[in-house]
Amino acid sequence: MKKIINAADQVVEQMVEGLAKSHPDLVERVPDTRVLARVDKRPGKVGLVSGGGSGHEPAHAGYVGNGMLSAAVCGDVFTSPTPDQIHAGIKAADQGKGVLLIVKNYTGDVMNFDMAKELAEMDDIQVEQIIVNDDIAVEDSTFTTGRRGVAGTVLVHKIVGAAAEAGASLEELKALGEKVTASIKTIGVALSPCTVPEVGHPGFELGPDEIELGIGIHGEPGFSREKIMPSQDLAKQLLERIDNEHHFAAGDKLVVLVNGMGATPLMEQYVFANDVHEWLGAKGTSVEKTLVGDYMTSLEMAGVSLTVLKLADEKWLDMLNYPVRTIAWN
Amino acid sequence: MKKIINAADQVVEQMVEGLAKSHPDLVERVPDTRVLARVDKRPGKVGLVSGGGSGHEPAHAGYVGNGMLSAAVCGDVFTSPTPDQIHAGIKAADQGKGVLLIVKNYTGDVMNFDMAKELAEMDDIQVEQIIVNDDIAVEDSTFTTGRRGVAGTVLVHKIVGAAAEAGASLEELKALGEKVTASIKTIGVALSPCTVPEVGHPGFELGPDEIELGIGIHGEPGFSREKIMPSQDLAKQLLERIDNEHHFAAGDKLVVLVNGMGATPLMEQYVFANDVHEWLGAKGTSVEKTLVGDYMTSLEMAGVSLTVLKLADEKWLDMLNYPVRTIAWN
Repeated sequence: MKKIINAADQVVEQMVEGLAKSHPDLVERVPDTRVLARVDKRPGKVGLVSGGGSGHEPAHAGYVGNGMLSAAVCGDVFTSPTPDQIHAGIKAADQGKGVLLIVKNYTGDVMNFDMAKELAEMDDIQVEQIIVNDDIAVEDSTFTTGRRGVAGTVLVHKIVGAAAEAGASLEELKALGEKVTASIKTIGVALSPCTVPEVGHPGFELGPDEIELGIGIHGEPGFSREKIMPSQDLAKQLLERIDNEHHFAAGDKLVVLVNGMGATPLMEQYVFANDVHEWLGAKGTSVEKTLVGDYMTSLEMAGVSLTVLKLADEKWLDMLNYPVRTIAWN
Repeated sequence: MKKIINAADQVVEQMVEGLAKSHPDLVERVPDTRVLARVDKRPGKVGLVSGGGSGHEPAHAGYVGNGMLSAAVCGDVFTSPTPDQIHAGIKAADQGKGVLLIVKNYTGDVMNFDMAKELAEMDDIQVEQIIVNDDIAVEDSTFTTGRRGVAGTVLVHKIVGAAAEAGASLEELKALGEKVTASIKTIGVALSPCTVPEVGHPGFELGPDEIELGIGIHGEPGFSREKIMPSQDLAKQLLERIDNEHHFAAGDKLVVLVNGMGATPLMEQYVFANDVHEWLGAKGTSVEKTLVGDYMTSLEMAGVSLTVLKLADEKWLDMLNYPVRTIAWN
């Protein structure tokens, strides 16, 4: 294992410290926790909290700030944060109008965020949560009952974050988040595995010309292993699976997120994005916005995920374009 | 070689197309070229053009837009763009007040940008250029006479871009760019090599526990190979080399860029950033701004580079913070 770290069991601690020291104008560390909270509080607005295991940076700390999250809770690598840490995140986010939790669908996260919700309710903070389950690759998985929550989660952060900034109520935000989540479909592919620092060896193996379709963001199994194929064939395979869910029709207005898993050059991501545009254009759909880059990674995994949001409401596009100040959302 | 591409000789073409299709609100492709130009022209302002070999994305196309570059010219992977392509970039950037070329110091780039300058002058476009040579690792290198131009170049884009937007003249921008360049020192380290698509195999080899200090962004040799070491020791080694140039003193105001080379997780980059802050803090310096992320990559190379800009003028900080609309600068 060759990594730029000091000690495997100090990685998250020192990353959190590095985030706080590097961006004091945007985030502050809640003392004695692994919670990063936005510096410019918004009294009277609903707070938004997300988080989960670390190793997916810039998710979620990179999305803390004006117009997105109020706080992010950083668990150990690929491990849910504990309820007391999430509770600290909720308290940091609370500005008197309640707090919405945006949780990726993994059993540990769902359980711990739920326990934190109960702890916060004992403090008289009103808390609601939405579970993001955008990964259509498999129905149940290693750490999940139902579909996994993956890169599409950042679109939920962005849309719900803009609505929160505009003053929406907790109930409105929960309903919005659930509607947006239902409109997001994601599927991923891995070209190489990744190594959790405390484990010290790759989580799985792939042959020199092999890829895994439907990979999870922790390396959970997908649905098939195939030989590496041209980008346009890969785009076609992933888009056909998404089409089975979205049933694309001419005139559909879409948002596309091509997400790098960590070690895939932007050059390849844009070649792939070009093929995605070609396929969607041939269907007569209209891509209203495209995001390309490392939005939710899996350490140094090579691969990409493809997310397509179907715009059920054109206001969602305005919310995606609403200017924010965060570490990672451009 | 396992890459998400269609054909090795089509990678740059399809990447450029992908960039243009993904961000039509920000950039447009100059027809029949590999030039990406900003959509919202600024008549009466000096144009800024950069570029070079591809494979360093988001540099330079990701920095085209309001407040940064007017156009970026994308050469083949790790190969200078030809004079006619650069000439097309200059024409796209020209808004009647001349064009400044920001060139990384590689022999091929310097020669081709210079020839393009002559071509443009025949069109009566006034052109000046600055050569960025921020890499202190070695004095001459595989493709370079003198020091190489690397990640610090993006700080030049940003500062000079803000001044151009504010209406500075061509002569003022050239002087500013040269002063900023002289204040930027960078040094890099590789943990793994990268593979140019048309070559098909890695450009060099590193043992399982080996790193190369002073690596270039095309994999050019550095100054020493060592065993992987803790992040804080690595930070110390690189900072001591930068200190030999900058001669840090208490009260110095600095800007730090921790740049991922392509395959290094943000988690590791922030652990390293934390160690950089510790070391600089112990020197009594003040880090006024920190950038962490993949700003100038080397395909899927693992490693980081560290750039320190000494703020000779506090206005530079305002220029770095001046809001922009580009693909990659946040």
